[in-house]
Amino acid sequence: MKSDIDRLMDAAQVEAILVIGPAQHNPAMYYFTGGGHISHATLVKRRGQEAVLFHATMERDEAAKTGLVTRDLSEYRLQELLNKADGDMTRATVMRYQKMLADLDLTQVRVALYGRVEAGETFALFSALQEVMPDLEFVGSMDDSLLLQARATKEEKEVERIRKMGIITTQVVGQVADYLTSQRVKGGILVKADGEPLTIGEVKKKINLWLAERGAENPEGTIFAIGKDAGIPHSAGEPEDLLRTGQTIVFDIFPCETGGGYFYDFTRTWCLGFAPDEVQALYEDVHTVYQQIMGELVADEHCPVFQQRACELFEAKGHPTIHSDAQTQSGYVHSLGHGLGLNVHERPWFKRNASPEDKLIPGSVVTIEPGLYYPERGMGMRLEDTVWVRPDGAMEVLAAYPLDLVLPLKGA
Amino acid sequence: MKSDIDRLMDAAQVEAILVIGPAQHNPAMYYFTGGGHISHATLVKRRGQEAVLFHATMERDEAAKTGLVTRDLSEYRLQELLNKADGDMTRATVMRYQKMLADLDLTQVRVALYGRVEAGETFALFSALQEVMPDLEFVGSMDDSLLLQARATKEEKEVERIRKMGIITTQVVGQVADYLTSQRVKGGILVKADGEPLTIGEVKKKINLWLAERGAENPEGTIFAIGKDAGIPHSAGEPEDLLRTGQTIVFDIFPCETGGGYFYDFTRTWCLGFAPDEVQALYEDVHTVYQQIMGELVADEHCPVFQQRACELFEAKGHPTIHSDAQTQSGYVHSLGHGLGLNVHERPWFKRNASPEDKLIPGSVVTIEPGLYYPERGMGMRLEDTVWVRPDGAMEVLAAYPLDLVLPLKGA
Repeated sequence: MKSDIDRLMDAAQVEAILVIGPAQHNPAMYYFTGGGHISHATLVKRRGQEAVLFHATMERDEAAKTGLVTRDLSEYRLQELLNKADGDMTRATVMRYQKMLADLDLTQVRVALYGRVEAGETFALFSALQEVMPDLEFVGSMDDSLLLQARATKEEKEVERIRKMGIITTQVVGQVADYLTSQRVKGGILVKADGEPLTIGEVKKKINLWLAERGAENPEGTIFAIGKDAGIPHSAGEPEDLLRTGQTIVFDIFPCETGGGYFYDFTRTWCLGFAPDEVQALYEDVHTVYQQIMGELVADEHCPVFQQRACELFEAKGHPTIHSDAQTQSGYVHSLGHGLGLNVHERPWFKRNASPEDKLIPGSVVTIEPGLYYPERGMGMRLEDTVWVRPDGAMEVLAAYPLDLVLPLKGA
Repeated sequence: MKSDIDRLMDAAQVEAILVIGPAQHNPAMYYFTGGGHISHATLVKRRGQEAVLFHATMERDEAAKTGLVTRDLSEYRLQELLNKADGDMTRATVMRYQKMLADLDLTQVRVALYGRVEAGETFALFSALQEVMPDLEFVGSMDDSLLLQARATKEEKEVERIRKMGIITTQVVGQVADYLTSQRVKGGILVKADGEPLTIGEVKKKINLWLAERGAENPEGTIFAIGKDAGIPHSAGEPEDLLRTGQTIVFDIFPCETGGGYFYDFTRTWCLGFAPDEVQALYEDVHTVYQQIMGELVADEHCPVFQQRACELFEAKGHPTIHSDAQTQSGYVHSLGHGLGLNVHERPWFKRNASPEDKLIPGSVVTIEPGLYYPERGMGMRLEDTVWVRPDGAMEVLAAYPLDLVLPLKGA
């Protein structure tokens, strides 16, 4: 959590954190600013000091609302720098950063770089800045980010926001279940009151609407995939597909707070009307592994231990897994879960090669999502809940919802 | 437009474009893939050739839907590379890129880098890749991007999508106007049927809901700012603020297609019930400049010419502008407009230092948004429409909506 940042900076020998980009849909900036209508900013946090937010003049009120120490970027007179740089914006911006960093006395230190921004601009900018400030070292990495490590554990007020998104999510899931079960069945497909078949595209529109009604955003879309599509973990579902009885539907929903804040992540697998024996048998395997793993979660344990355990359990039931065959696309083919917060997917990781720090530290919020996929048999299933590792080490599902496979239909 | 890319690559001596990141809310990747549930991918487009999309195995169906040439990233066996790299994900990913680029015979060329991704990871990754592939040159820039230049002009099918967003936007604006004018007034503020005052936060929730009902997303929020907040161009408005009669409301709305596609951008300024003389006079100045500029737009002209012209017109009416005083926060304080597409703000630019290519080339879609701001007098106003420069050079506002200042109230 935030209170760990200085210690983690110290451990990583990082003197400052530099975050760039907007405040919305940019997790690192959101983490410090709490969002807001800030389109371009730079935030610098020195070890042991408060963060400073450099903002555009037009956004001074929004910057002030963050409660951070603020500095108006207009102090750095970009137009004059642009004249000096013969109109080259990259060079002018490099000069501005030089001044800003010098003003903060950051000239001979390691600086960790963050922010969801354009790759080419950023690479050009920081390569050039590195050249003119050779004693400054910009660091970043694909897996050992100190900020992601800090964010891997949450303060209770963050957990409450995630829980609130969980309640919204499960309310909408309930609405979808009610909506589906209130339709009629004709020739094995759901039809609406007007006799026309219901499509997955229509269901997804309802999902977006019901999320918006509750003040949530859905920036990454929803997986609502039936039959063969359900057999591929990240197939989102075809809008024109119909809702056939007796086929598996994987419904994976991961909305966030309006303005790009905290996410929730949740999956249920449904069969409309009835489940064929083959589906029922597979579902029981997933359900058993889900229950078993949920019961075995222990605070402070290394997350990949549970991935290994899930593989053992599935293999004992005769399913191939990515541990028995790294390339398999049938059986259990993905990671058991992941951390959740301002990103849908964040630390701690459960994958085999996760770092030693990827543990169920109290304060972690993680998903647990075992699944089985048999695309060649036209089926797939997954059960996912989001779990908070409480300060006392107990595990708590943040928004409970029934695990039933079959959605009973009228006259099916 | 897309058909310009090879020519622009040639002019920039760029042999390949490399795009990284997800397909949603990532304009460069969206431009090639058309969106889709793709969370991590790499796209490579060589000059004169079709783009190739490297995708995760779990996302093979979503990748196939793009219609692009696809390659499964599992061919590159990340786990083996990770073992070689002692578990260091950055080094393993560098090795994977080395192989991918070598497979495409890209080893001694200039490569332009794109994608909205994490800055630190990207800087570390491409700095390391640059070191092991010294004959490859990764280029990027803050203003001369060839892809942004290609995207500055739109194909008609892109314009139709922007127009559709414009129709949705103006329908929602109309709904907001109807909603406000159907409330009662009590002591100079709008009150709901239950007698409670209406807040800006409630209005914004309605806006999000009505956008979602029409299948639009609102990832960057809405500016709905009254009084003093309206006097600061990018103040988004306070959720708890009340709707007072006779005060300026700046309503700037910029939603996009679901899944992170094309945006629209639109602003009106409203006074509820009546406009004080001072507001009316300022509004007439903005309205006159808006009409004048709209009438003077000419295809192929350099965009900053119109910014210069707007400044002259406002100065002739006695207002300070950023041309008369670069630091002014009163009067006309921002740029006249900007291009619009997969970003709310993109080329062509209207600012003074825009490049010679920033012209009203047929196919451009731009906003025109003159405004006046007097925060010390508690008021600000802006009028904004989105204009398509048609292939024949004619200008067309993509979604017309009345420019009226006063929203008449019942019994005000």
